[in-house]
Amino acid sequence: MDFGVIINVLGYLLIIEAGLMVPSLLVALYYGSYDWKAILLSIIVTGVVGFVMSRIFKYKDDIQSKDGLAIVGFGWILVSIFGALPFIFSDTIPSWIDAFFETVSGFTTTGASIVDNIEAFPKGVLFWRSFTHWIGGMGILVFTVALLPMFGIGGFQMYKMESPGPAPDRIVPRVRDTAKILYTIYTVITLIEIVLLVLGGMSLYDSVLHTFGTVGTGGFGIKANSVGYYQSTYIHLVIAIFMTLSGVNFSLYYLLIKGKWREVLRNSELRFYLGTILFSVLFISLNVYSQMKYNNFGTALRDSFFQTSSIITTTGYATVDFDKWPTFSKVILFALMFIGGCAGSTAGGIKNIRIVVLLKSIRREFYRILHPRAVLPIKIDGRVISSNTVAAISSFFALFILIFIVSTMIISLDGVDFESASSAVAATLGNIGPAFGFAGPARSYSGFSNLSKLVMSACMLLGRLEVFTLMILFNPSIWKYEAFSRNGKHY
Amino acid sequence: MDFGVIINVLGYLLIIEAGLMVPSLLVALYYGSYDWKAILLSIIVTGVVGFVMSRIFKYKDDIQSKDGLAIVGFGWILVSIFGALPFIFSDTIPSWIDAFFETVSGFTTTGASIVDNIEAFPKGVLFWRSFTHWIGGMGILVFTVALLPMFGIGGFQMYKMESPGPAPDRIVPRVRDTAKILYTIYTVITLIEIVLLVLGGMSLYDSVLHTFGTVGTGGFGIKANSVGYYQSTYIHLVIAIFMTLSGVNFSLYYLLIKGKWREVLRNSELRFYLGTILFSVLFISLNVYSQMKYNNFGTALRDSFFQTSSIITTTGYATVDFDKWPTFSKVILFALMFIGGCAGSTAGGIKNIRIVVLLKSIRREFYRILHPRAVLPIKIDGRVISSNTVAAISSFFALFILIFIVSTMIISLDGVDFESASSAVAATLGNIGPAFGFAGPARSYSGFSNLSKLVMSACMLLGRLEVFTLMILFNPSIWKYEAFSRNGKHY
Repeated sequence: MDFGVIINVLGYLLIIEAGLMVPSLLVALYYGSYDWKAILLSIIVTGVVGFVMSRIFKYKDDIQSKDGLAIVGFGWILVSIFGALPFIFSDTIPSWIDAFFETVSGFTTTGASIVDNIEAFPKGVLFWRSFTHWIGGMGILVFTVALLPMFGIGGFQMYKMESPGPAPDRIVPRVRDTAKILYTIYTVITLIEIVLLVLGGMSLYDSVLHTFGTVGTGGFGIKANSVGYYQSTYIHLVIAIFMTLSGVNFSLYYLLIKGKWREVLRNSELRFYLGTILFSVLFISLNVYSQMKYNNFGTALRDSFFQTSSIITTTGYATVDFDKWPTFSKVILFALMFIGGCAGSTAGGIKNIRIVVLLKSIRREFYRILHPRAVLPIKIDGRVISSNTVAAISSFFALFILIFIVSTMIISLDGVDFESASSAVAATLGNIGPAFGFAGPARSYSGFSNLSKLVMSACMLLGRLEVFTLMILFNPSIWKYEAFSRNGKHY
Repeated sequence: MDFGVIINVLGYLLIIEAGLMVPSLLVALYYGSYDWKAILLSIIVTGVVGFVMSRIFKYKDDIQSKDGLAIVGFGWILVSIFGALPFIFSDTIPSWIDAFFETVSGFTTTGASIVDNIEAFPKGVLFWRSFTHWIGGMGILVFTVALLPMFGIGGFQMYKMESPGPAPDRIVPRVRDTAKILYTIYTVITLIEIVLLVLGGMSLYDSVLHTFGTVGTGGFGIKANSVGYYQSTYIHLVIAIFMTLSGVNFSLYYLLIKGKWREVLRNSELRFYLGTILFSVLFISLNVYSQMKYNNFGTALRDSFFQTSSIITTTGYATVDFDKWPTFSKVILFALMFIGGCAGSTAGGIKNIRIVVLLKSIRREFYRILHPRAVLPIKIDGRVISSNTVAAISSFFALFILIFIVSTMIISLDGVDFESASSAVAATLGNIGPAFGFAGPARSYSGFSNLSKLVMSACMLLGRLEVFTLMILFNPSIWKYEAFSRNGKHY
């Protein structure tokens, strides 16, 4: 591993982060809130450290795939450490571990919060907290679409692994151009939602922050009872629809703009995603309508749609305390935490496309018992998925479940009940946010031990970086320094 | 599908079952208990129906793999229906659904019970209930080792899929001979445990019934508080050790007899199995010792060993109410429910060998990210596992989790809490028996609705038949009548 290159690139990353803190400073100054000093100090510290790191070592043109993986993994951790500074300096979150947890939760677009008095937060820091969702959401697009392929085969392989469906690289020849198109779509969706929320009577400040949480599928609420604070069906529906939209593969919007709506409608992952939402909304609304105190089915349908959309897109906003819903509805929501959104979106979880491939591999096994000698490739949208990709997806699934079980064991040492421990892990590993019981939507993660908070921070990063990217850093072979043994660009 | 052949074979199966009820009749007559009439009537009904079925259709020498699958699937269901007759006729379990649930639970060696007053059961029916475990345990060996391969490629393929490790077919050339060796080992282990329990002061009747539950890894208790009734460390240890022994691949005992102990010690699955037990006992005993009212660590160690062995081997006996244990210990036990015993044993669950292959496939993915072009076969004990087998194991795992989730949803409609619903499904699908909460070790499955009982009966059969064998019956292509289109023995 070439530490020089890694430290150099990470230095530039911190300089960018310092720049991204500037809007929060401006918001604090505009509203005259006391936290402007804390944010300014954070900018200076982050910027200076980044500048020094980028000057000590020189950038080289060829970044190996191993180094690329290290940059991505360490980058997310480093950015979260420095992103926690505004919370610490402003004394809004005095504990270092809590501030780190909250920032990881922001950048990974999880939305799990340890804050119990969010309405008392000053406007600048509150803006920064939600803005991390928007940066994180964009970061996912940067990392998976633009940066990873440039690190050579390893990164590109990983990127392809993630999008076995209609991969974004098919849209336009150059991957960097694809990334630009995706950012533009991301920004346009953001602006539309802000306008729609303002039209619904929400203040501009609240609209911007809620939109960051929606399109980044993050879900940090800025009121004690999340979106439930706004007693407006219009606002609930706007956010629910934009959450659903943000869970869709962003490359499909480009196809839509190009008029290829037939291709979009035929997309297997989109169909599975929308079908799952439809199924869940139907069953949950019937269940809560019959079990809870609902006067009319329409309201039950609205709340079910909002919560289904919020969980499957791994956003985590809440309009009601769904922890009080009957077990049947909670089990469906629990399953949605694992499914997650579509590949190429800002959502977390296992991703719909992987579930589709797994279901097809199950169907193939049934066929194989009756026809043992047949060669049976798995196809998605007419394209054959290579057996290596199917194996990678199966291993991803097994590893996801393994991390879920091991983390649940550690969290359960806090003495919380089984439902609380397992759902808190599912909600952080899947980048959702609120869980059931102890960390339910009406409560926060503040009651967990420091060990649990660190484990759940790791879960958020593992979920966001799709597990392998982060865990590969613990592989000894990546730690060999290979600067002297290089003889080619990629090998 | 050739229905004639299937009905013919199923008829013989019922005649065998009628014969297997005779020992229970003799027990009832010996003890002079009132249920002898009910058992005699069951023998007559089962025998007559079997005789008629076997005479209507003629047996043909070539059984297709499809027909073989149908015989296995329907065979287990039919045998459970007729095996429920003694409970119904004796009025010990008046409800048909309850009696079916109890019999499925017996034959699948699950041990989940709907009986709340077991100590009031007459001796003949009580014997039959535990004897179904022993028959089921032997049946697993019959079906997977002796019968399935005779149904041609399909069955044999499935059999190989199940034992990717040191397959029993390597022991001696003929599979039927292998089966005979395994039954002999099964019988010898049974006899040794009976003797050891009698030496420990347990009555012969109780010793025989507990041994049936142990070597069949079933776990039907004959006392209200299961094995906890016997306040003897000796008895607890004998049963715990024999449960552990029954979860081992039976072909390893043959290797041991042949003096090939080096090969046994090197066996990957055995190492993983024993390692998992060691790890679990250690962590659980430390956890319960520090959290529960234990005077000395030895007792905590004893109870932890008993419970770990009971759950990982999917037996389900209990010496303490482990539902009251701290969450950490319960999460470990929950995970063990999924792992289960070794392939080629009487235990249920996913099986250790599959877990080992899944872990190796995860490790391979890490390696593949760094070396995308390398060809990386998975090896177990020096033998390469074909990519088809790895795919089959991955699909099995995904399907197992899928059935777990869907079944949990249905069970949760009963209004029980999340932990009770999910653990009841895990405990039936994994053929364990007692779960947590509502169906904990100190309680029974009697409180669930009829729908839930039928779903859990299906789970027990799915778990026992390793999912694919039973589900393939719902594949339309298997239902085509092909008697007229045959032109070869297997195609």
